[in-house]
Amino acid sequence: MEIAGKAQKEDWSFVLYRGNLTRQFRTQVMSELVGNLLVAQSGGPTAVINASVAGVVQEALKHPCIKATYGGMNGILGILNEQLTDLGLEPAATIEALKHTPAAALGTCRYKIDFKKKPEAAKRDMDRLFEVFRAHDIRYFFYAGGNDSQDTADKIHQEAVKRGFDMRVMGVPKTIDNDLPHTDHCPGFGSAAKYNACTVMEVDADVRSMATDDGSCCRIEVMGRSAGWLAAATVLAKREPHDAPHIVLLPEIPFNQDAFLGRVREVVKKLRYCVVVVGEGLKNPDGSEFSADTSRLDAFGHPVLSGAAERLAELVFGALNTKSRSVKLGYAQRCAAHFASATDAREAANCGEAAVRAAAAGKSGFMVKLVREDKEGVCSFRTDLQPLGDIANVEHLVPRDWISEDGFMPNEKFVAYARPLIEGEVKIPMQDGLPRLARLSNKLVPTFLPARQK
Amino acid sequence: MEIAGKAQKEDWSFVLYRGNLTRQFRTQVMSELVGNLLVAQSGGPTAVINASVAGVVQEALKHPCIKATYGGMNGILGILNEQLTDLGLEPAATIEALKHTPAAALGTCRYKIDFKKKPEAAKRDMDRLFEVFRAHDIRYFFYAGGNDSQDTADKIHQEAVKRGFDMRVMGVPKTIDNDLPHTDHCPGFGSAAKYNACTVMEVDADVRSMATDDGSCCRIEVMGRSAGWLAAATVLAKREPHDAPHIVLLPEIPFNQDAFLGRVREVVKKLRYCVVVVGEGLKNPDGSEFSADTSRLDAFGHPVLSGAAERLAELVFGALNTKSRSVKLGYAQRCAAHFASATDAREAANCGEAAVRAAAAGKSGFMVKLVREDKEGVCSFRTDLQPLGDIANVEHLVPRDWISEDGFMPNEKFVAYARPLIEGEVKIPMQDGLPRLARLSNKLVPTFLPARQK
Repeated sequence: MEIAGKAQKEDWSFVLYRGNLTRQFRTQVMSELVGNLLVAQSGGPTAVINASVAGVVQEALKHPCIKATYGGMNGILGILNEQLTDLGLEPAATIEALKHTPAAALGTCRYKIDFKKKPEAAKRDMDRLFEVFRAHDIRYFFYAGGNDSQDTADKIHQEAVKRGFDMRVMGVPKTIDNDLPHTDHCPGFGSAAKYNACTVMEVDADVRSMATDDGSCCRIEVMGRSAGWLAAATVLAKREPHDAPHIVLLPEIPFNQDAFLGRVREVVKKLRYCVVVVGEGLKNPDGSEFSADTSRLDAFGHPVLSGAAERLAELVFGALNTKSRSVKLGYAQRCAAHFASATDAREAANCGEAAVRAAAAGKSGFMVKLVREDKEGVCSFRTDLQPLGDIANVEHLVPRDWISEDGFMPNEKFVAYARPLIEGEVKIPMQDGLPRLARLSNKLVPTFLPARQK
Repeated sequence: MEIAGKAQKEDWSFVLYRGNLTRQFRTQVMSELVGNLLVAQSGGPTAVINASVAGVVQEALKHPCIKATYGGMNGILGILNEQLTDLGLEPAATIEALKHTPAAALGTCRYKIDFKKKPEAAKRDMDRLFEVFRAHDIRYFFYAGGNDSQDTADKIHQEAVKRGFDMRVMGVPKTIDNDLPHTDHCPGFGSAAKYNACTVMEVDADVRSMATDDGSCCRIEVMGRSAGWLAAATVLAKREPHDAPHIVLLPEIPFNQDAFLGRVREVVKKLRYCVVVVGEGLKNPDGSEFSADTSRLDAFGHPVLSGAAERLAELVFGALNTKSRSVKLGYAQRCAAHFASATDAREAANCGEAAVRAAAAGKSGFMVKLVREDKEGVCSFRTDLQPLGDIANVEHLVPRDWISEDGFMPNEKFVAYARPLIEGEVKIPMQDGLPRLARLSNKLVPTFLPARQK
């Protein structure tokens, strides 16, 4: 059994206990941990996070040591409330259809077990979680999520080791922001990138066709609080030098107002229009949020958060008298399953499957990661594992040398990285002109514990 | 020859001139007007306005009386500047690919020939237009656009009659707003409706999966300045009573703040979240724009136009302390060819073809319209003609009895109307994970006239 973060010495004492068995055989024997599996989803949803759950459920059925596969409702929050559903009772067609169904079919949460800020509540939560795990004989726990969720998974893994509770904990990566370290990229990113790049391509055609000598400047705001991966990926829409995006503003590059307005002027002069993509987390040179307008206060005295695109609109209109609409895709970009990347959806399912295989083989305390392999210019990806402890609180930003010197455009290195991730389209069954999405019954299994004390 | 708006008497004198010929034969003889065709696009683009141009070009090739098919760049504006392109020289594959290429491939404009406000400029423009028509032997003029564009086409048609210039003028309907009268619906609407409804369906899944006891209220703003067709069509996302949209705010129904907040509270209490769709042109009870915040002024002293969704956000947050992001699709919704309605794209092409057939058969001064035929519950559409004079300055709004009594939801009559329009998906060739769109070469034909005097 391999437990991430455990000292080598303990591993060896283990080996001595089992005597002369071969390593292969030893793993097999040790992996025979019989019990139930619990999978839950956490943080902001994506177009393919359900594909990971489908991967977990379908792979779990192949391992007889896994008796039942439960889903935890609304992440940790539902588990604390002993709200579990038996995914094995869902129709197989529904599980398969999860692969084209956006958002978190089990529900999600942003709940944090915070030992630093709220040590008592955190301890109470941990006790309660393990009560639920024991009550439902959970021996496999999988958490699909981003940075915070991997941190939660790591804490639960450590607690299991500390408490001597034999449970295998695995993180399944998920985030459209693509800011998890150690993995080449995150499931969820490719689909959002594909949809955003397609939107930029289409809006480019629209604004170009409206362009007359008056000039216009359209701003498209995309998600990404600290990392500019999604904003940067819209560069994939650019097939010809004059294609949009014409300017990409990344949170990684402090906003230079003069340089920006100069560039807008330049582009409008040449093309009669300009399409600017801005990451919502764009920062001022002093590190403050660009989108917070401190000169205007709302009814409660807070600065108005009008959004980066709207702030840019004011700047551009004020300086150039050039006007046009903003596009703020918001949630639409993280749930656009109708234009999901087939590569992304497949990898999301693969990550779920890999998590089950690794846990069944005795691993615990790891996040599944994606590793890029480049053979003679053909890029492919395989799954591997990374200790959960390496993931938490590390943010993976767009490297500076993947961005043009002036900071306004991702370069060919970024394009080579991002292009394979948006390959292929997911086939979706349609009904009356709209996607037919899966909906889990989410009937709760009987509870054994008294209600949670908050 | 049938000219819309001409007196019956003139038609009969015509008949007498041709004597005893049958009606069929007479039309054929009269239709033999030999010359060039000019097609142009006007107003806000759509996902399928290029399909209409493709229909015009492909149908024109079948009529030997049409010598060449020109495109006017940027609508009337480019024609005034004698900027014409020979569409017959474009590769046939490019013309076919226009059927899945969004926006106006010929460019568009919002230029108006306004005899009331600027009579001298209007007269100068008209003279110039007919100089261009004569210089390039334009005998067929087709204008694809919305209300204003049909008005322009009508003026040009009347001028042609007045000047005795033998030219057949046809309007081709286009607008995502769906506010043209006399036609069952407008090409462009179905595709935008399909994309918006799909977005609402996906965002519903997203916000639902994030819903915890805190409650949340997501606002999705869609286009439609006076008419709520697009906002209303998002009701197609609703397959189950609890599905989004939960509230639809239409420009046709004056905004009732108390009733709205009460309804949000009700929905959030029941479902823990609420998805509101708002038409950008929502009006206050006094008729003023809801989205204009007169309490806040920008740097120039104008009311801040933060958008209807952002204004709702402030209201909801202020009253319910319920928070979440807004989605403002903006241009994205009118150019989303990647999820266009196959019905819409086909009809857009059909309208272009019908315009050519009618003009070649001797008609002038009409807009092509779509007529609904309902046979044993199976709905189909055919093209027909409506005099251009009937179109201008009439706005077609969502009928009151297609909306629930409380004004917050389109009813089953609306659904029966809108559902057939979003049927089917357009197959788009892909390249590196993104659509391959057509791009016209738009090489200008030689000019004959001196530059335009402004």
